[in-house]
Amino acid sequence: MAPAEGPVAIVAGGGRFPAEVAEAVRATGREALVIGLRGFAPRRIAGKRVATVDMLDPAGLIGLLREARPACVVLAGAVTRPGPLAISSVFSAFRNREELARILSSGDDRILRGAVALLEENGFRVVGAQEVAPGVLAPEGALTAARPTVAQEADIALATDLLAVTGRFDIGQGVVVSGGRVLAVEGPEGTDAMLDRVAQLQRSRRVRLDGGGGVLVKRPKPGQDLRVDLPALGPRTIAKLRAAGLSGAAVEAGGVVLIDRAETVRAADAAGLFLVGRRA
Amino acid sequence: MAPAEGPVAIVAGGGRFPAEVAEAVRATGREALVIGLRGFAPRRIAGKRVATVDMLDPAGLIGLLREARPACVVLAGAVTRPGPLAISSVFSAFRNREELARILSSGDDRILRGAVALLEENGFRVVGAQEVAPGVLAPEGALTAARPTVAQEADIALATDLLAVTGRFDIGQGVVVSGGRVLAVEGPEGTDAMLDRVAQLQRSRRVRLDGGGGVLVKRPKPGQDLRVDLPALGPRTIAKLRAAGLSGAAVEAGGVVLIDRAETVRAADAAGLFLVGRRA
Repeated sequence: MAPAEGPVAIVAGGGRFPAEVAEAVRATGREALVIGLRGFAPRRIAGKRVATVDMLDPAGLIGLLREARPACVVLAGAVTRPGPLAISSVFSAFRNREELARILSSGDDRILRGAVALLEENGFRVVGAQEVAPGVLAPEGALTAARPTVAQEADIALATDLLAVTGRFDIGQGVVVSGGRVLAVEGPEGTDAMLDRVAQLQRSRRVRLDGGGGVLVKRPKPGQDLRVDLPALGPRTIAKLRAAGLSGAAVEAGGVVLIDRAETVRAADAAGLFLVGRRA
Repeated sequence: MAPAEGPVAIVAGGGRFPAEVAEAVRATGREALVIGLRGFAPRRIAGKRVATVDMLDPAGLIGLLREARPACVVLAGAVTRPGPLAISSVFSAFRNREELARILSSGDDRILRGAVALLEENGFRVVGAQEVAPGVLAPEGALTAARPTVAQEADIALATDLLAVTGRFDIGQGVVVSGGRVLAVEGPEGTDAMLDRVAQLQRSRRVRLDGGGGVLVKRPKPGQDLRVDLPALGPRTIAKLRAAGLSGAAVEAGGVVLIDRAETVRAADAAGLFLVGRRA
């Protein structure tokens, strides 16, 4: 399953995830080279100095990768779409303006897909973090002291059924169910904004959670490109679950990244929430 | 289809809808008696003085209805959940405290369902506005000068397919689709808040509508009790559609109320939006 031997190049955006991927790769005995995107990645990751490149300088990135000669490349960590000023400034210097314009005129996902295409056209193999660092994915079973109750299991089952039918519509990476009632289906706004909505539904008295609380179920969308958009759950998600009054989360085992797992589980335990991995 | 001959009693909340129902009932040649909920309904509707009752005084409402001896009762117009102070003040006077507590401790829908149950227990027949005033529902066909393009028809078809599979989960009164992408599925937050979300998705650059715009499709949920929760579309929805950058809406013909139809169509035409009724 792991791509051919040799170093793994990690193109790093923001957050802790790139460092976790680097550590998990090194734990498998392979070399990890981190190329940070300027303004997103820290300058040092796990004590090592990170090579940096501007996200609007694809030629520079490819140059660095050619020197590194990695077996494969992983994109990890958050990036935001560059503003129009940054785009126009690179336009004045970069030769392949039309290509860049095409990539940047699309949504965030398409920017990342454009990056994957550019790397592949230049002969690099792009893989998902989970392929070189399987330890970053949620395992099967309970991770917390708390376990779902019978009522919460029924809500998990309902959410899972819903995700099964919405999958072909390319929606439903996340669903919130409480007491047999679907409170929210995740759209392009993402999981955090969906959980904010569930909190708001209660503040506005549109919804009152019954005693059983409620659950978040999260999994990759069918056909989702896990190289550019690996679903994730981390400490911030736990805080949002708590703010929304939910009881816990069930994620697809092997399909969802646990960002900073130790801290995520600690935060869930501190809040009395359950966190379980379930096979698809 | 129309309930037995005789006057129709309209228990009126806020907005223009109760007046429209009263006019539509009178247009069928029947008498319409309006009982306004104090603080919600205007004092006069179509030039006639409205009997008023406090929404926290079910005994008073039933007394007024016993005098009126209507063939049926319609609940029309918006009400909001009374605050805790109002509830406790009525608790001090009203004899059936437990019944009222049970009703008021639930969500808005359940308050209305509780009201229906109370009226039925007292021998009144409760029907939906559409049964005594079918003219308030969206007809089949285009209501506006604008018509859906081929691309928008494809988005309407996609949204309709999605609503068909989500129906058994008691969600999806509304869906927004743009360029083949599902942008939002309506939960308990309601259509307006969903359309605000679509506008926000664009402001936050999560989504950029393609040239084809996007569509709202709205219909009743399967099994929805149309006596207490008739889906509606009105001038405010048109303003929200416009703010969200959408191209128009398709509603279930015979299943969705058009609030203030003339103004709704005028506003849609002014904004260049389409509005079509489609058979389920």
